[in-house]
Amino acid sequence: MAQKPSIPKGTRDFTPSEVVKRNYIFDVVKRHFQTFGFQPIETPSFENSETLMGKYGDEGDRLIFKILNSGDFLNKVNDELYSSKDSNKITSSISEKALRYDLTVPFARYVVMHQNELDFPFKRYQIQPVWRADRPQKGRFREFYQCDADVVGSDSLLQEVELIQLYDTVFADLKLEGVTIKLNNRKILAGIAEVIGAKDLLIDFTVALDKLNKIGEDGVKKEMLSKGISQSAIEKASPLFNLKGSNTDQLNKLDALLVNSQEGKKGVDELRFIMETITSLGLQSAKLVVDVTLARGLNYYTGAIFEVAAPEGVSMGSIGGGGRYDDLTGIFGLPNVSGVGISFGLDRIYLVMEELRLFPESIDRSLDVLCLNFGAKEGLAALKLTTVLRKHGIKADIYPSDAKLNKQFKYANNRNVPYVVLLGEEELINSSFVVKNMQSGDQKTYSLSDTQQFIDSL
Amino acid sequence: MAQKPSIPKGTRDFTPSEVVKRNYIFDVVKRHFQTFGFQPIETPSFENSETLMGKYGDEGDRLIFKILNSGDFLNKVNDELYSSKDSNKITSSISEKALRYDLTVPFARYVVMHQNELDFPFKRYQIQPVWRADRPQKGRFREFYQCDADVVGSDSLLQEVELIQLYDTVFADLKLEGVTIKLNNRKILAGIAEVIGAKDLLIDFTVALDKLNKIGEDGVKKEMLSKGISQSAIEKASPLFNLKGSNTDQLNKLDALLVNSQEGKKGVDELRFIMETITSLGLQSAKLVVDVTLARGLNYYTGAIFEVAAPEGVSMGSIGGGGRYDDLTGIFGLPNVSGVGISFGLDRIYLVMEELRLFPESIDRSLDVLCLNFGAKEGLAALKLTTVLRKHGIKADIYPSDAKLNKQFKYANNRNVPYVVLLGEEELINSSFVVKNMQSGDQKTYSLSDTQQFIDSL
Repeated sequence: MAQKPSIPKGTRDFTPSEVVKRNYIFDVVKRHFQTFGFQPIETPSFENSETLMGKYGDEGDRLIFKILNSGDFLNKVNDELYSSKDSNKITSSISEKALRYDLTVPFARYVVMHQNELDFPFKRYQIQPVWRADRPQKGRFREFYQCDADVVGSDSLLQEVELIQLYDTVFADLKLEGVTIKLNNRKILAGIAEVIGAKDLLIDFTVALDKLNKIGEDGVKKEMLSKGISQSAIEKASPLFNLKGSNTDQLNKLDALLVNSQEGKKGVDELRFIMETITSLGLQSAKLVVDVTLARGLNYYTGAIFEVAAPEGVSMGSIGGGGRYDDLTGIFGLPNVSGVGISFGLDRIYLVMEELRLFPESIDRSLDVLCLNFGAKEGLAALKLTTVLRKHGIKADIYPSDAKLNKQFKYANNRNVPYVVLLGEEELINSSFVVKNMQSGDQKTYSLSDTQQFIDSL
Repeated sequence: MAQKPSIPKGTRDFTPSEVVKRNYIFDVVKRHFQTFGFQPIETPSFENSETLMGKYGDEGDRLIFKILNSGDFLNKVNDELYSSKDSNKITSSISEKALRYDLTVPFARYVVMHQNELDFPFKRYQIQPVWRADRPQKGRFREFYQCDADVVGSDSLLQEVELIQLYDTVFADLKLEGVTIKLNNRKILAGIAEVIGAKDLLIDFTVALDKLNKIGEDGVKKEMLSKGISQSAIEKASPLFNLKGSNTDQLNKLDALLVNSQEGKKGVDELRFIMETITSLGLQSAKLVVDVTLARGLNYYTGAIFEVAAPEGVSMGSIGGGGRYDDLTGIFGLPNVSGVGISFGLDRIYLVMEELRLFPESIDRSLDVLCLNFGAKEGLAALKLTTVLRKHGIKADIYPSDAKLNKQFKYANNRNVPYVVLLGEEELINSSFVVKNMQSGDQKTYSLSDTQQFIDSL
């Protein structure tokens, strides 16, 4: 019996138009990854479970898709364990592999396994899908692409500078103007927590601070209090809530606030170097701003923290982010390798580009010329013409049968073909063909012995 | 404790050089898919299990990777079933999704789900990984890309003609000359089985015949006998074992052999039309031959059967294959949609191209120019230069720290950079930079105010 087919929730089919537009974004990103000296790698879709488990916290472990062992997988579960019927405990006995959850852990694994063949600093990019058993909702999928560029083996701040240039270059090339690159540094957050006497509560402090734009100053203070940060500490931190003015002004205020924290001052110095270098180099269209409330991924970032906001007026969260992590590969036995990286949020960039109509016109035109089919002999002549057009890189096709003309024209219309070729009995006798411009309706006759004239007109 | 990382057997990491070469092949294939009017689609990596199970035979079902349900998956298994500890029976209760096994079934599912938005004939291409729990061995992987082009909704033989042209065009563009495109038709095989009185044993007959090149005439006859095909039937079929001569000669002999089979004669007519049309159009570099022993995928092909053999002298199996299947989408409730398609065997094409050294020279050059770093001020000037080079599409980088020069040069050597830029204290004073050609050792000085001169020299 025939099934009514469907696809798993949280996954998507991509239509030709969507694939073409997605590839347009990928191609721009890749091109600039390459001019910036990044090299592509690819890793397997599934990894050994022990490579992934325990790297993303308990919540992450739950959201990793596990692959069932092949064959008689239950045979390996001992009877005592089996009788517990405890899904959590039994999982590792019946599943040894799991789908990639992000590109960072597989990259760390790659660096460690390939360390002897790599030249450090190693700049890699990777554009591959990842899978998460998240509850599907608007804009959140169980399969989606990540698009990452990372450098490992260099703690130079020039890397941060280049990554900001890279963001700017990509978004400028996509004509996505007016994005804001927000910059922070974990050391500044740590320094603030230190000088206000809340060093132990760094994470709570920053998680609350991160919500400043959403819940306002009062809301943040309330949350801090509830997390056990003292009233006096919050008072000391209050300059943070009104850090306004130019980047330089903000950095100067932070300097004053952090005068007693070595780590904090180091963070300000790093930010200042990055800011000044970028100012000296100039950006094409992005705006770079200090944002001390930015606490993205604080669990593993140790230095710079980046986030890219879509142009004002577009309601969309961040369309990119990243940061520096001082010990990327330690989990796999290669300590003290500093890394810094950024990622591009493909799905959101796609939505922003659709909303702002930034995709080039006719990007998803799948056919430039359709030759109609008037029968066996005429069809063969049309196929010869089609073959010549294709050799010149023109997307050309011939209607596969001599169906009624209105059916063939309807097909041409549905596929938005700009030019239709008519090569009927009369044309074949005259060694000619007629080209109909489907937009204007104009028709023009060309000689079969001079197809170049038509090609040049396209 | 640090883990010593590894990857699952049958999977691969791809290094930058490998990714670049694989993408080179993909890009050529895609370009021609597009000029031939094919449109890209993408489907999810995992499908609902019922979409895949039962479509590839029992062996296929076993080789499909199943994904474990999330959460307390054992909770849904009733106690009686659970106590059986029968892996086979329990699988469907703890796994609802499975990894794509090929691209054809997901394509059929796509066509049915999207039938109202598609214009038929629908020509799609799809290049995505598939997964099979096969025993890994040399050249056989558990994750590999398939690269398919199919047309659905047209039974015109022009499709077969175009697919042969497409093979020829792609392999010519890859400079992979001398490939042989073998062509057969299931109707011919069915006709032969009919006229020799072995209609019920069609599959056994063709599976044996398919081995002619491997085990010879005697071996094939022995296998046929053992499968229950009578001595007299085998005698009648014996002209097949010596079908030599031109394609036309072979077709004429088949005509004679199949004079009493309507289906067989139809197959010969189809083959003849394809052959004659291709002869009239001409091929760039491939050879097209009739091969009645070809029985690839006979279980579902109903008309033309294609297979592409690597150039003589390269020991490699087929590097592509395909055929026509009259009822692609019937399993999902849309009957009578004829399809025909071909696929390219990426991994094998890659190996053949490596063996014949067909990849363009310096295809995997990851950097055109490396600027050495002589300190803060010089480094900033070098970064400005790097920024200009990148804007011109040149793959340029700056060494991230002012490490010792021999260390920086060593890095340049390891990365095979053709040009190294030296911009030291003296150059900065003179507003100049020195370019060292790493192959010849020549050095040349340029002005920082005229970087275009250097760019033009590249």
